[in-house]
Amino acid sequence: MSLLIVGSVALDSVATPFKSVENALGGSTTYISLAAGYFTGPVHIVGVVGEDFPKKYLDLLESHNVDLTGLQIVPGGKTFRWAGKYHYDLNTRDTLLTELNVFEKFDPVIPEKLRKSQYLCLGNIDPELQLKVLDQMENPHFVVCDTMNYWIEGKKDELLKVLKRVNVLIINDSEARLLAHEPNLIKAARIIKEMGAEILIVKKGEHGALLFMDDIIFSAPAYPLEMINDPTGAGDTFAGGFIGYLHKVQDVSPESIKRAVIYGSAMASFTVEEFSTKALENLSYLQIQDRYREFLTISRIDEEIE
Amino acid sequence: MSLLIVGSVALDSVATPFKSVENALGGSTTYISLAAGYFTGPVHIVGVVGEDFPKKYLDLLESHNVDLTGLQIVPGGKTFRWAGKYHYDLNTRDTLLTELNVFEKFDPVIPEKLRKSQYLCLGNIDPELQLKVLDQMENPHFVVCDTMNYWIEGKKDELLKVLKRVNVLIINDSEARLLAHEPNLIKAARIIKEMGAEILIVKKGEHGALLFMDDIIFSAPAYPLEMINDPTGAGDTFAGGFIGYLHKVQDVSPESIKRAVIYGSAMASFTVEEFSTKALENLSYLQIQDRYREFLTISRIDEEIE
Repeated sequence: MSLLIVGSVALDSVATPFKSVENALGGSTTYISLAAGYFTGPVHIVGVVGEDFPKKYLDLLESHNVDLTGLQIVPGGKTFRWAGKYHYDLNTRDTLLTELNVFEKFDPVIPEKLRKSQYLCLGNIDPELQLKVLDQMENPHFVVCDTMNYWIEGKKDELLKVLKRVNVLIINDSEARLLAHEPNLIKAARIIKEMGAEILIVKKGEHGALLFMDDIIFSAPAYPLEMINDPTGAGDTFAGGFIGYLHKVQDVSPESIKRAVIYGSAMASFTVEEFSTKALENLSYLQIQDRYREFLTISRIDEEIE
Repeated sequence: MSLLIVGSVALDSVATPFKSVENALGGSTTYISLAAGYFTGPVHIVGVVGEDFPKKYLDLLESHNVDLTGLQIVPGGKTFRWAGKYHYDLNTRDTLLTELNVFEKFDPVIPEKLRKSQYLCLGNIDPELQLKVLDQMENPHFVVCDTMNYWIEGKKDELLKVLKRVNVLIINDSEARLLAHEPNLIKAARIIKEMGAEILIVKKGEHGALLFMDDIIFSAPAYPLEMINDPTGAGDTFAGGFIGYLHKVQDVSPESIKRAVIYGSAMASFTVEEFSTKALENLSYLQIQDRYREFLTISRIDEEIE
């Protein structure tokens, strides 16, 4: 019953009004697997980096329950690089650079032993690649998928094919509105669920997240952070906490899915407190449980009706 | 232990992408008192209208537990009129007309017997008028106050004086950021609480509401509405449900305040489903309790920690 993550591994240069970092560890697979590794392991990944990818980052991933067997290191190749600059309120950013490098020809070949993985997380990559991954899998039990506006606008047909083959789609609110062509988020959710994925999670940044599953709508609060340093990777971290928790408990009932949404939110709340993956490098499971409990407290109310 | 509401009574003309209404019942006092009247009564109001104010609206208010003793009807005067047009997503609107008419010289004189009111709700009016009301009151127990960007920008000094004399400030998220000069909502809340009001409620429209009280942060979800017809009055309705419930239970403990936030949210969720005050005209208390329970369900989760 292993867990497989497929997506990007990158070197990120991020500037915010407070600080900048260069060539920091980034990429969807990185955040997803680091977050999932706090709940379960080994977390298998399939991805590609160049020869320039620092050994310290490989060591970091390995020390966090991440199995690197499926990570191709292209001799002489350069790792995918992304650079972005956040605006004053940290809610918007400009992409300054996208250098695909070895990621441009990324052909996700799933090693034989990982094709039987029962839990699969498709990071935010080209839907064509997501389909290629799905084609290689042998009847996975639970598939989670992320995407973004770029693919919704540019590869909608392929994305719709992906949605018919996954259990969970995780997107943000503006992506949900774009995908459904509908400004009302609740209507948009219904439209998207009809596209395929039976579970939809809409991330709303500082406003928390919404889960749509069967007839259930579950609203997860946001953690009241006074200091957000770097929003990069928050969504990927959410997906990692979400699938990591579910893989740990081996249960995808509505109650477990709700808890997974809170664990995903808790992990994301750590990530944004520091730059790059820093906050995910030295957490304890106790800290994660504490934050999970804080999330429950934020929306807890006695149910007496007067 | 009576409840007094002071604010505007208006005739609204509202256009949305779906429908338009002309000279419909509007104004902050109207929505607040109609909502509060489902919980408690009589709800006393102080306001002003012109001779043109339709008798059917007076009858409507009276039939909803609203005591009109403090409502001045200016002979020959014209009632305050507002007209607005909502954009496609209903989240933004243009004000097409603001005709103050009799409201321009509104001088809120609190009738003698109402000066002892223990619960007071100051609708969104000029902070100078809010101060005038406070000056006439005899040691009210619990004061709730609303305001808007127009007063935050134009009458900040007066508003700050008001805040030192009220228990609860209810504003929306953009107003909170503006008032605190701080984009982070949690930091903004702390700054605003230091201005005076010990309880701050930040309404976030489709994202629910946040309560800040002592060291408590409580996140209330939004009701998942697929059809929003007219957002006008939602914030006032929230305030009415909030203070109406608290006046009913005669308790302002944190647990009651949280429940009041949910009752306020529930009432607002009804209001936006129909134009003007239509949704507030024929509710049953059973419907309100049902919606309250639905709000609790949306954010409910078992607290087991794995």
